[in-house]
Amino acid sequence: MTGVTGPYVLVSGPGEATAEEEAWAEEVGRLVAEAGGIVLCGGLRGVMDAAARGARTAGGISVGILPGESRTGSGTSLTVAIPTGVGETRNALLVRAADVVIAISGEFGTLSEIAFALKMGKPVIGLHTWDLSKPGDGVDPIVRVTSPEEAVARALAEAGRGGG
Amino acid sequence: MTGVTGPYVLVSGPGEATAEEEAWAEEVGRLVAEAGGIVLCGGLRGVMDAAARGARTAGGISVGILPGESRTGSGTSLTVAIPTGVGETRNALLVRAADVVIAISGEFGTLSEIAFALKMGKPVIGLHTWDLSKPGDGVDPIVRVTSPEEAVARALAEAGRGGG
Amino acid sequence: MTGVTGPYVLVSGPGEATAEEEAWAEEVGRLVAEAGGIVLCGGLRGVMDAAARGARTAGGISVGILPGESRTGSGTSLTVAIPTGVGETRNALLVRAADVVIAISGEFGTLSEIAFALKMGKPVIGLHTWDLSKPGDGVDPIVRVTSPEEAVARALAEAGRGGG
Amino acid sequence: MTGVTGPYVLVSGPGEATAEEEAWAEEVGRLVAEAGGIVLCGGLRGVMDAAARGARTAGGISVGILPGESRTGSGTSLTVAIPTGVGETRNALLVRAADVVIAISGEFGTLSEIAFALKMGKPVIGLHTWDLSKPGDGVDPIVRVTSPEEAVARALAEAGRGGG
Repeated sequence: MTGVTGPYVLVSGPGEATAEEEAWAEEVGRLVAEAGGIVLCGGLRGVMDAAARGARTAGGISVGILPGESRTGSGTSLTVAIPTGVGETRNALLVRAADVVIAISGEFGTLSEIAFALKMGKPVIGLHTWDLSKPGDGVDPIVRVTSPEEAVARALAEAGRGGG
Repeated sequence: MTGVTGPYVLVSGPGEATAEEEAWAEEVGRLVAEAGGIVLCGGLRGVMDAAARGARTAGGISVGILPGESRTGSGTSLTVAIPTGVGETRNALLVRAADVVIAISGEFGTLSEIAFALKMGKPVIGLHTWDLSKPGDGVDPIVRVTSPEEAVARALAEAGRGGG
Repeated sequence: MTGVTGPYVLVSGPGEATAEEEAWAEEVGRLVAEAGGIVLCGGLRGVMDAAARGARTAGGISVGILPGESRTGSGTSLTVAIPTGVGETRNALLVRAADVVIAISGEFGTLSEIAFALKMGKPVIGLHTWDLSKPGDGVDPIVRVTSPEEAVARALAEAGRGGG
Repeated sequence: MTGVTGPYVLVSGPGEATAEEEAWAEEVGRLVAEAGGIVLCGGLRGVMDAAARGARTAGGISVGILPGESRTGSGTSLTVAIPTGVGETRNALLVRAADVVIAISGEFGTLSEIAFALKMGKPVIGLHTWDLSKPGDGVDPIVRVTSPEEAVARALAEAGRGGG
């Protein structure tokens, strides 16, 4: 269990994902683990379980923080599953535990994790995710990338600049 | 203390607000209270305190849910101030307690409340707030309005349709 | 809604209570409200609803912080009902929001509120509640009383000495 | 990272511990990890870090759930450190994530974890910890043991009967 030298990377994305989104998430999880990082996720299906699967492939660690009161229904590739019993509020806990967030596509839950990360000053890397713009301000707060490789490279670089 | 017949309306917006934003929030707070609703807010300054001030003007009730461990620094117009000690995570609690959200302008904290409301299936009324669009989907999930009067009218109508 | 000059007093006790326990709680709620305080409670039945009923009798304010995601099932005497969706974890939020705790009889939930209050350095007044003693230390951390009147008198005195 | 077949065991105890308490905690952590379980703890010093150290000695996994917003100050033996930013409220999250609790000696924080576990219906094994008795009921809700070996044996047995 030595070797956790890299950052805690939250991989955020939908529980019902396309095959492409799951492939991206699995590749992200694998690359994070190879770099010595820990994969954080929401612990359920889709993008979450794919990211955990990628970490497992690389012999790394993934941690799922779950909305429900038990581990029932959690992804089967997780190293550690943490039920919280706080429902959607666990999204805030997920972001708090992360040094950097990689958002893949996304529904409203992913939007909430992006927003919390921005609020907490943590870098957000976006792969085909929400478009956002603040009223009266055209600046995009998300670092946009176009591949899993680029997502992890940017996440590691941003985390190293003080994220978390 | 009778007369709480209307919905719980979260007024979300920045702690450092322009005079125009504060005027909008105060008017929103007043109109919600006149309609028998309860004003929820983050309990600090700017839009939050203005909304509470509006509720007080109308003889109504406002509840501030605070990020810190004590009531120190909370807005002075609140009827009830609830310190949580959970930091930014209180944004999720604020949304959970609301039947409907009125987002005024907004920084990242407001974005997190918009996102949670959408995730929890609660209507979001936007007055000069974030532009959002999901990847591959041009649909705007926010009900856009242009005045405090319209914001409250839409909030009451949406809450009555089953929000909360 | 002026007149909130007293402390926030958490009235903690079982949802399934005896008639005597409910009578104590109602009297406590009434006396707290008469002293200008706010009654906090878990927002459900038994001791919780009785305390809210007492506050209402005196024209005061009560706030229920609920474990579930909606106000359904909350006590009917509450001024304000705050659903949290965080389950039993709301016990920690209840204590955080209080200046002082009055524990009446009690099951495990009340024990958790006593423990959090002690941990957070808030005074605990006990009316026929848990006996506790730390290993290797015979000191009782609870202020023991034998009537609702004494409970409120001690709660107001302790809160004035810096609780909260 | 295979081999997590046992329960999640929360080792609860003071951050400022005696040498004997730390020795107990380290032995508990080691035995839990040898049995294929995961050691949960509050992630700080004293009993918490000692339990993590024991798990590490046995090549196992420990997870610390921290009260603060960052990993700064967390125990150095943890496999995974999860900052929550929710302060003492994290005690409720710790218990929620556990299948069984071993309470070693203890201050008020440990009492809060014992209480939450009892409330959530999870078994509590006590090694020189709080004496408790409910009003009007002499039943002790804690399984009392006198050694780390007995504590882990009972924890594994109780968890296997449906705790968690």
